[in-house]
Amino acid sequence: MKEHPSFAVIGGGSWATAIVKMLCENLPKVNWYMRSIYAIEHIKKEDHNPNYLSSVEFDTKQLSLSNDINKVIKNADVVIFAVPSAFLSNELEKLSVSLEQKIIFSAIKGIVPETGLIVGEHFNQKYNIPFENIGVITGPCHAEEVALERLSYITVACADEEKSKMVAKYLSSDYIKTTTSDDVIGAEYAAMLKNIYAIAAGIAHGLGYGDNFQSVLMSNAIREMKKFIRKVYKMKRNINDSAYLGDLLVTGYSTFSRNRMFGNMIGKGYTVKSAQMEMSMVAEGYYATKSAWLINQKNKAKTPIINAVYDILYENKNPKKVFKKLTEKLD
Amino acid sequence: MKEHPSFAVIGGGSWATAIVKMLCENLPKVNWYMRSIYAIEHIKKEDHNPNYLSSVEFDTKQLSLSNDINKVIKNADVVIFAVPSAFLSNELEKLSVSLEQKIIFSAIKGIVPETGLIVGEHFNQKYNIPFENIGVITGPCHAEEVALERLSYITVACADEEKSKMVAKYLSSDYIKTTTSDDVIGAEYAAMLKNIYAIAAGIAHGLGYGDNFQSVLMSNAIREMKKFIRKVYKMKRNINDSAYLGDLLVTGYSTFSRNRMFGNMIGKGYTVKSAQMEMSMVAEGYYATKSAWLINQKNKAKTPIINAVYDILYENKNPKKVFKKLTEKLD
Repeated sequence: MKEHPSFAVIGGGSWATAIVKMLCENLPKVNWYMRSIYAIEHIKKEDHNPNYLSSVEFDTKQLSLSNDINKVIKNADVVIFAVPSAFLSNELEKLSVSLEQKIIFSAIKGIVPETGLIVGEHFNQKYNIPFENIGVITGPCHAEEVALERLSYITVACADEEKSKMVAKYLSSDYIKTTTSDDVIGAEYAAMLKNIYAIAAGIAHGLGYGDNFQSVLMSNAIREMKKFIRKVYKMKRNINDSAYLGDLLVTGYSTFSRNRMFGNMIGKGYTVKSAQMEMSMVAEGYYATKSAWLINQKNKAKTPIINAVYDILYENKNPKKVFKKLTEKLD
Repeated sequence: MKEHPSFAVIGGGSWATAIVKMLCENLPKVNWYMRSIYAIEHIKKEDHNPNYLSSVEFDTKQLSLSNDINKVIKNADVVIFAVPSAFLSNELEKLSVSLEQKIIFSAIKGIVPETGLIVGEHFNQKYNIPFENIGVITGPCHAEEVALERLSYITVACADEEKSKMVAKYLSSDYIKTTTSDDVIGAEYAAMLKNIYAIAAGIAHGLGYGDNFQSVLMSNAIREMKKFIRKVYKMKRNINDSAYLGDLLVTGYSTFSRNRMFGNMIGKGYTVKSAQMEMSMVAEGYYATKSAWLINQKNKAKTPIINAVYDILYENKNPKKVFKKLTEKLD
């Protein structure tokens, strides 16, 4: 028997880099896939990712780097996906190796745009991975603070407790505390919804609302999140746990959050298109807004904040007017 | 019958000034007591409070200003107290007029140090005011944003719904939305506890913890607040309402909060005494910490954050060590 299961991390961004760093605290070897051969060569030569968390120095003897996703996944027992949700389908299309015997953990915060599914559901429905082999790694956690080794708490969720505990063990260290949970669906939806609320916080800020309103918005957002998730998957959960409320707060109060920045530009009068061009990337919350709105057309939870963001982003409504109306619905 | 009840506001600080401004949107006359005759003369001449929210211009014809607390209270139907809790006893000792026929609203966030009671209880026990004549005005609300007329939400709580509605009506305006509640005790304890959590947030920041930890701290704080208040007074309340969670967030995330600043200095290595001297005023949360700790000796809710702050402020324990231990208890 192997001493450790073999881990693969899929993605070259800041969150993927942070997860590789966490695993390297506990494992002699981590398999790491990223698309860019240039970044791989840079890491091998300079010991750090040139594009993200470049202050993190790796011991390259611990890394098995490749831009061949099949090679990386083939020998792995646990595969952690940490690419933006918009790129997931594209990466999965490259697969010739089977995922069926693998334990799949998603560190992706969002919806797969092509299917409108959260990542766990996508793997289940499109790749026949049973739910007991699917898990989620979620914050509240800015990757940048992992780079600085600032104390962070991570929630590892899986229907199979043994697997969540195992993955949690390999992520834990002096600066990473882990909690396990069996609420994969709730944790994934929370991670997705918080990006919509971060866009809302950004819009409010862009429109000139202040800190008093921001606190009311977050207080309403967590109540709305609770109702939304409850309609999707009812189970006993405390919405004020770190994986839900903590994750909402770390994003909703972050001035570095891409979603909040995107919202801020919308509030300041940019069109969706010009804000997206300016940011050179689409904020995850943009897709999440449409999916959440669609899901909720059926579920009919009361979601005035999601509806307001949807009206602004997809119905071209005036942010100032929409938010004026929204303020009447909050308390 | 008078067209409007007569309102008196007691206090010359920023929150008192903000409340007078709110009332002036709806009333032809507001009675306003403050100690400083100099400030009163300044307002009469220059139309603004020289010391607090000096950007707020009053129409002095609307103000009946006096530094005689008996004169101000005598003709008032509704008396709103907005002095720091540490000064309340002192002001009340000056009273020769009776409070018994008055409707008393507290806009004070804290505990009366001399009695260890929250303000509502203090008025009830020491002045025989029946609970149906006692109410609370609470945020989430920075006075500075009221000065800027930025949209803010206020909760007005009273056991007698008619009175909370009446006071709410006179505080409401374009930029002030009000909600009413019957949870006077819960709203008061929440307003008091949040200052302790703001100190905790400050200590954490002073010790070098980052945004990831701050979100975990706030997520644990709201769960702890729920347990604490539930032990004090059990009733149906949603702890995520603005008066509880919103109020916690607006203070816990504010870099201007006096409590957070105080905690920050403690975290950076100041002694309690030197931090207090540096700030030239005692943060409300300092007294609140002791009272909350004492109350909870009896109630035995699980309050690791309050206990940690108490150990640091009153038992002279090392902040770094205390917080290291605290991090083990959070999730």
